[in-house]
Amino acid sequence: MSLLTRTALADLKPLHFLWEVRDRIGILRLNRPDRKNPLTFDSYAELRDLFRALPHATDVDVVVLGSNGGNFCSGGDVHDIIGPLVGMEMTDILAFTRMTGDLVKAMIGCGRPVIAAVDGIAVGAGAILAMASDLRLATPDARCAFLFTRVGLAGCDMGACAMLPRIIGQGRAAELLYTGRVMTAAEGHAWGFWNALHPTEGLDDAAMALARQLAAGPTFAQGITKTQLNQEWNMGLEQAIEAEAQAQAICMQTKDFERAYRAFVAKEKPVFEGN
Amino acid sequence: MSLLTRTALADLKPLHFLWEVRDRIGILRLNRPDRKNPLTFDSYAELRDLFRALPHATDVDVVVLGSNGGNFCSGGDVHDIIGPLVGMEMTDILAFTRMTGDLVKAMIGCGRPVIAAVDGIAVGAGAILAMASDLRLATPDARCAFLFTRVGLAGCDMGACAMLPRIIGQGRAAELLYTGRVMTAAEGHAWGFWNALHPTEGLDDAAMALARQLAAGPTFAQGITKTQLNQEWNMGLEQAIEAEAQAQAICMQTKDFERAYRAFVAKEKPVFEGN
Amino acid sequence: MSLLTRTALADLKPLHFLWEVRDRIGILRLNRPDRKNPLTFDSYAELRDLFRALPHATDVDVVVLGSNGGNFCSGGDVHDIIGPLVGMEMTDILAFTRMTGDLVKAMIGCGRPVIAAVDGIAVGAGAILAMASDLRLATPDARCAFLFTRVGLAGCDMGACAMLPRIIGQGRAAELLYTGRVMTAAEGHAWGFWNALHPTEGLDDAAMALARQLAAGPTFAQGITKTQLNQEWNMGLEQAIEAEAQAQAICMQTKDFERAYRAFVAKEKPVFEGN
Repeated sequence: MSLLTRTALADLKPLHFLWEVRDRIGILRLNRPDRKNPLTFDSYAELRDLFRALPHATDVDVVVLGSNGGNFCSGGDVHDIIGPLVGMEMTDILAFTRMTGDLVKAMIGCGRPVIAAVDGIAVGAGAILAMASDLRLATPDARCAFLFTRVGLAGCDMGACAMLPRIIGQGRAAELLYTGRVMTAAEGHAWGFWNALHPTEGLDDAAMALARQLAAGPTFAQGITKTQLNQEWNMGLEQAIEAEAQAQAICMQTKDFERAYRAFVAKEKPVFEGN
Repeated sequence: MSLLTRTALADLKPLHFLWEVRDRIGILRLNRPDRKNPLTFDSYAELRDLFRALPHATDVDVVVLGSNGGNFCSGGDVHDIIGPLVGMEMTDILAFTRMTGDLVKAMIGCGRPVIAAVDGIAVGAGAILAMASDLRLATPDARCAFLFTRVGLAGCDMGACAMLPRIIGQGRAAELLYTGRVMTAAEGHAWGFWNALHPTEGLDDAAMALARQLAAGPTFAQGITKTQLNQEWNMGLEQAIEAEAQAQAICMQTKDFERAYRAFVAKEKPVFEGN
Repeated sequence: MSLLTRTALADLKPLHFLWEVRDRIGILRLNRPDRKNPLTFDSYAELRDLFRALPHATDVDVVVLGSNGGNFCSGGDVHDIIGPLVGMEMTDILAFTRMTGDLVKAMIGCGRPVIAAVDGIAVGAGAILAMASDLRLATPDARCAFLFTRVGLAGCDMGACAMLPRIIGQGRAAELLYTGRVMTAAEGHAWGFWNALHPTEGLDDAAMALARQLAAGPTFAQGITKTQLNQEWNMGLEQAIEAEAQAQAICMQTKDFERAYRAFVAKEKPVFEGN
């Protein structure tokens, strides 16, 4: 018996977004398609809580953040979020910005790869949700904008000044953050923001195929990959190499490592079990 | 009344470069076009002092570093700088390399976006001036070289080993720094060094249009964007996210944030005032 | 007389790979071409020892890591390495992962540029050897895969989670590390992993030409470039700029700096001597 409480998340019924678990893949979609899926205080908090529950999930190995009704996410709702923030006291404002940051921290810390599948609009906090995912697919019509400057704010929202430069380069990130302009799908693909483009009708299938591939892999080791990609973010290079020596040594004591070896010797395809 | 001394910079008459302020945009050009605008000890120092004055400027929201006579900057003058450095004592040499580094530190710390508009040659310290800018435009004939190795020096000049890899990637940066070879405009654009290419006759207009767009934006928040892009350079990811929660909370108490909201509700274009 | 022991490496006769020194260039090739040049415990250790000897070498200014029989390196041998690791005790496993990490540390710390010249397969630890080099050439048929996930392991091997994102961007690196898929030569070139592609029959000549160019340069200063590229990996930007002021000041007291100046004044090509 585990010392840690572990829970299945398949039966979770979130109030503010769609959620289902299929083939050990958690599929999440915001659900106000008529308004291009904006975020509210409540959906932010519930998203954060879901990602915080994931490290203890028994039935989810990969998460797909999908689109809905032709769009991904239009960011913080002008009426539900921006209006109330105007004139709010600093203690409450900081509680809000920390909650949005906590969502990104929870995505980074959830221990499973997160795949964003973006059709249509991904702007403001919607662009951040894509950015904070591990892998990113989009359609040729996807329009992504870190448009904080257009609402009078700075580009430093939910980690953008740290993460976006590492994904697309410091100069391109500066342009997007200073101007708030749309990054076209073609730009995002050429710049390494989108891992691949798929037509709208093939986007979900492509995301699920990638998710199934990862779910069929050595999921414990993939969790370590995710941990190390973030852990080594600002380590010295020699320290990162030592950290990897330790982290990989852990993985070499998993049964999945032995399963891969046995399968190779037997000229079979390994069947990984995530331990 | 402000506790801090703030000054207008429009009337500044630098001795070693051209300077004018138009539409809250400071336009700076080196001015020895017959020699492709080299730097001297004096122009380095005066540039450093100008960028150090900018955080307190009342009348400049954006800086354009322009070209002059078909070239941007040919770097440290062989006769005025390299000759005297040969055989100099270490205390004086270090005073010089620190002064050059201080210019980059001052550019990074000036609190306003800096746009480089590069035609022709940008080599040596000239390449650094482009690199240390926030946004970079060039002409298809721009030739940029981090050519320190050709004068017997290391590639680590004025921050190049730290900044160039973040802009164009570690492998491409290593090639440019080890070989000193020219990066063509097409390469620089494909690699994310140049944000865009414009023909020579349209370069200044493009730079001014971009500068005007930024000057019409929420300039206080843009200053925070600049601060955070540098502040988060080597933070841990979780620390960067918390830093952004605080920095964005500050911006949410500006009037520009409220102005954007009011304009949105009124279906108007916001008029930002930088506070 | 030097206080430090310095040794010529030309006469070195490694047991587990080919080694020759020509024109101050050390040329190294793994030598089991029938099996695409896998690594073994012994060849890992001997490679590490060679790179650890290089800082004290009197006769090697540049290293070329070449291919052999149409391939670069197929990584850790399944029978010689993976088999024994399965079921090994943690103390021994960690000793192994540290040895592999020590090879990368030794490459980074060897004080000379390392040029990988990759034909055919560069997978697993073979991909790492290419990644840990300073400059990377490949043929259009080069196939590079960080395939650790396929053998049940994490992507964090020998520094990959730290280094690969800095070379090709965080999103592309995540895809390669999570999926273990092949990066084609065209992708690797577009993404900045390969500095250039050359046909198989021209690869060695291209690598040697680049190596000769570097060997004819100011090699002391190039060693400082290498030091600083790694030293500034996770420095703050202001600290990196100060570090470069100091490092470049050192180079300004070399005779190579004076040689470059004298040659320029005399309108000659400088002849550098590495001091």
